[in-house]
Amino acid sequence: MKNKKNKKNILIVGSGKLGSHIANDYALNDDNVVLVDQDENILKIVGAKFNGQTILGDATDIYTLKRAGIENADIVVSATNNDNINIFVSLIAKEIYKVKNVIARLYEHTLSIAYDKLNIATISPSVLSAELIKEFIRSSKEISEIN
Amino acid sequence: MKNKKNKKNILIVGSGKLGSHIANDYALNDDNVVLVDQDENILKIVGAKFNGQTILGDATDIYTLKRAGIENADIVVSATNNDNINIFVSLIAKEIYKVKNVIARLYEHTLSIAYDKLNIATISPSVLSAELIKEFIRSSKEISEIN
Repeated sequence: MKNKKNKKNILIVGSGKLGSHIANDYALNDDNVVLVDQDENILKIVGAKFNGQTILGDATDIYTLKRAGIENADIVVSATNNDNINIFVSLIAKEIYKVKNVIARLYEHTLSIAYDKLNIATISPSVLSAELIKEFIRSSKEISEIN
Repeated sequence: MKNKKNKKNILIVGSGKLGSHIANDYALNDDNVVLVDQDENILKIVGAKFNGQTILGDATDIYTLKRAGIENADIVVSATNNDNINIFVSLIAKEIYKVKNVIARLYEHTLSIAYDKLNIATISPSVLSAELIKEFIRSSKEISEIN
């Protein structure tokens, strides 16, 4: 059951696999989803089946973020493949526009300490996947111990 | 407590973030870890702090995989950024060398059906991360409902 009260403004920066996956999922819901990328071709591919809004522009330009509605965003996900861009977008969202929920994709996991200090949630796909693979390997060892 | 009986031969193909993260973790344990990549520079960077064995070579060449010890591997993780290479390595491991545990990184999630049929485990970092971000967004909605 959809509840209009819960309709959120979700701004996603970066339309790679991660960004476009989230964007497409939310576009099927009742949320307002805006997807920003500086690559016109990638945006066109995503946009073909995307029900939300796409914004072509450089996310390190604050005017691009304003065009994408950062001022009214409830959630900002910065999912580009560039840690510096993700840090920039997260900081702008958190410190200037006081966006409550900010999530940044993180390649260089050692940077997570800095994010923690800023109270910005991070996601490291490779670390997350590595943990899951290790869990798989651990289970397979346990199985061979039993056998 | 380490148990020699549980020492495993782990072959990892692809020394990007995911592959090298797993390789380094296991190299600190008692397992035999071999890491294969065709990029000499990347292998050098990883190898500098890596306690296992590195093999320079093209993983789509079966002789590279033999040099890396696929015949005695207990676990093969194919974590390159190329789905076709990962499919090739997984199939060689599973079908020719009867490796019990094979895990492939998967970019194009729609291919997962094919992997399921082959009984090969897959990991899609972007899908996994998207699910976690969605969980984060869901929680933030619940919090705002309570407030």
